[in-house]
This record gives sequence, C-alpha cells and structure tokens, in this order.
Amino acid sequence: MDEKEISQAVITRLPRYFRYLGELKDKGVERISSQELSRLMRVTASQIRQDFNNFGGFGQQGYGYNVEYLYVEIGKILGLDKEHHLIIIGAGNLGQAIANYMNFEKRGFLFKGIFDSNPDIIGKMVRNLPIQPMENLPAFIQENNIDIAVLTIPKTGAVEVAEQLVNCKIKAIWNFAHVDLEVPKEVLVENVHLSDSLMKLSYNINRQSQKG
Amino acid sequence: MDEKEISQAVITRLPRYFRYLGELKDKGVERISSQELSRLMRVTASQIRQDFNNFGGFGQQGYGYNVEYLYVEIGKILGLDKEHHLIIIGAGNLGQAIANYMNFEKRGFLFKGIFDSNPDIIGKMVRNLPIQPMENLPAFIQENNIDIAVLTIPKTGAVEVAEQLVNCKIKAIWNFAHVDLEVPKEVLVENVHLSDSLMKLSYNINRQSQKG
Repeated sequence: MDEKEISQAVITRLPRYFRYLGELKDKGVERISSQELSRLMRVTASQIRQDFNNFGGFGQQGYGYNVEYLYVEIGKILGLDKEHHLIIIGAGNLGQAIANYMNFEKRGFLFKGIFDSNPDIIGKMVRNLPIQPMENLPAFIQENNIDIAVLTIPKTGAVEVAEQLVNCKIKAIWNFAHVDLEVPKEVLVENVHLSDSLMKLSYNINRQSQKG
Repeated sequence: MDEKEISQAVITRLPRYFRYLGELKDKGVERISSQELSRLMRVTASQIRQDFNNFGGFGQQGYGYNVEYLYVEIGKILGLDKEHHLIIIGAGNLGQAIANYMNFEKRGFLFKGIFDSNPDIIGKMVRNLPIQPMENLPAFIQENNIDIAVLTIPKTGAVEVAEQLVNCKIKAIWNFAHVDLEVPKEVLVENVHLSDSLMKLSYNINRQSQKG
C-alpha cells in the first residue's frame, strides 16, 4: 500500500463497497466485473476503478475482481482486521441501541463499557455490562485500552465530556451529540448529526412538492 | 427564490448553517459577517458566500448578515416552516430513541405513530403512543397524511417494508436499515448507515496509527 493521502470522499465510499462485497460473498459470488458492480451499486464503473486505483487497483480489468480478496483487502484498509475497544457515554435509548447492535462486534468493535451521569441508572445492565458513573471514566479508559468513545448524550454536556475524553487520551470520538466538538487534531471525530440528516430529507420533500 | 437545481453538497451544508445561526440567535447576536461565521464554523468565507448565493445571497457583505433573518430564511428553504407527519417502523431502542428526541417536534416533524412486527410489544406505549401492528400501516398512512416513515428495523425486513411504504404512497423514507433501498424516484430516501460511519472512523484510526 502506498502512503499517499486518500481523499475523505473515497473513504466515505469504502464502507459501501465493503457492504456490497460482503453480500456478494455471502451469496457465493466469486468474481465480479466493475461493470456488474457498477450496475448493482448504481455508481459508474469508472468511479469504481478510480476509487480502487487509490489502493493499487485490486486486480485485472476484463477478468473481473475476486470478490473474497477484494472484501478482505477493503476490510483491512478500513482497519476491520484489528480490534477496537469501545465505550458508550450516555445510556439512554440511543446508547442502548448502539450497545445492542451486534454487527459492530463482528467487525471488531468490542463493547467494553457504558457510562451515564444519572445516578438512578448506575448498575443497571445494558446488554452484558453495568452502567458506570462518570467518575470511573479516566481509570477505565486507561486500564482497558479504550480507543473509541461513543457520545450519545445531549449537546449541553457533550463539550465538557469531550474535554474529559481528550484528557484521557482517547483516540477517537463517534459523536451523536448535536454539536461540533473542538478537539486537538490528533483526536479523530466522526459526527452523526441525525437532525441534519432529517433536515436534508425535509429540504428534498419541500423541493419536490414545489416542482410538482 | 429561483428555481435552479441546488447541488446536494450545498443542501448537506444547510442544516449546519441553520444550527449555528440558531445558536447565535439564542445568544442574542443580531448581525454576523461572513468572516466571523467562517471562523466560528471553520469553513472559508468564500464557501459561505458561494453557498448563500445559491439562494440570492441573503444580504449585504461588509455590513454582515442579519442573524434572525438568515435563520428564518434557511429554515424556510429546509422546509422547517411546514409540518411533517412522521411514523416510526421498528420500536426497538433506536426507534424509541428517535420517538423521544423532542427536538424533531420543535422543527415541525410530528411523531404520529409507531409500528412493529413483534406481537409481544403491540400496545406498549412509546412516548405518548401505543405500538401498532404492521397490518395497521396502510390505513394509518392514508388517514393521517403521513409523509415520512422512519425505518429502524434490521436489514432483513427493510426491503419488504419499503415496498409496502411505496404502495402506501409515502413521500419519504428516513432509512436506518443497513441496506440501500430500491424505490421509485419520486420516493425520497435519506440513509443513515451507522456502520458506514463507524468504519470511516476505523479507517482514520488505522491511518493515524500507521503515520505515527
């Protein structure tokens, strides 16, 4: 693998390739051409070839791609061959939904702990782990080699908790709080702003009703 | 407002402007220059001006933008001055998290019903509404003028439910199921693929650990 910087647009498309290839693999498909993959995924074959060329191309054109090989290689690029230790901060419905989403474990994201600031729910079990108080956070992160913190708390507390996480030397924050976090650049943040996504849908509904 | 087609990249950025302007408004800020907004939002001032020019520009440069006016206008563009009737299909943790997310109602997205295929939880209350069986879906959509269906079910059932929704003439699907839905183009789909977002974070963690 060469060391050039890959654009975030390409990275954003990789998980979708990985998903489609996993489905093809599960169906027993061994080889697929960029044309077939293009039809299936509704992106142009040239886009697919360009994206794959960022990583050396993954095999000959004409003959098609080896599905299993491509699946494994893209998985490696996505870091899915490594284990990640993940904690969830905020044990409300959203936090519990993520804790219970087994698919993440299959991909190497191991659910290690869940925290909440509400004293009434401390000790309650979420999946197989008890909800812990926030004061346990720093020691827990260090002792359990936690690299990802999932923030499923309202935006009011999120900035302060993010600061705590930075002090605990967390590597990455998967942020569901509806606020943009200010963290040093070595801490990675991936935002899921659900409201933004719903507003985009609303725009498109509005636009369509104006058209016709 | 002119009728030209605005790119989805611009649309994707609009909710973020709306969010920052809402916060400025709440803080009592009356005017803001594109330079100040640029610093706050960490995008270039020229990007902001370009984005706003898609909608006529919203006011003079130099003098700055009227925060309240800009907030209201962007809200209108996003269709937030209209009411949307929303149902949730899948009453698990994620469905319940969305049902309980009050902020959506403030933006005009009214939670009207929740459905599940599991007979054991029918009638159980989520927020203020009972979980209904799937067979109620077609009549309910028609009688309650439902325009948005939120799909918070596993990917196995999602394709079939999406077909049902299309037959019920739903306008839009907010899809959390981990599958790309095939629907006629008049049905709008906005996907929230949580796994894809987590894999992108994993890529960046992996990348950073290789660098340093």
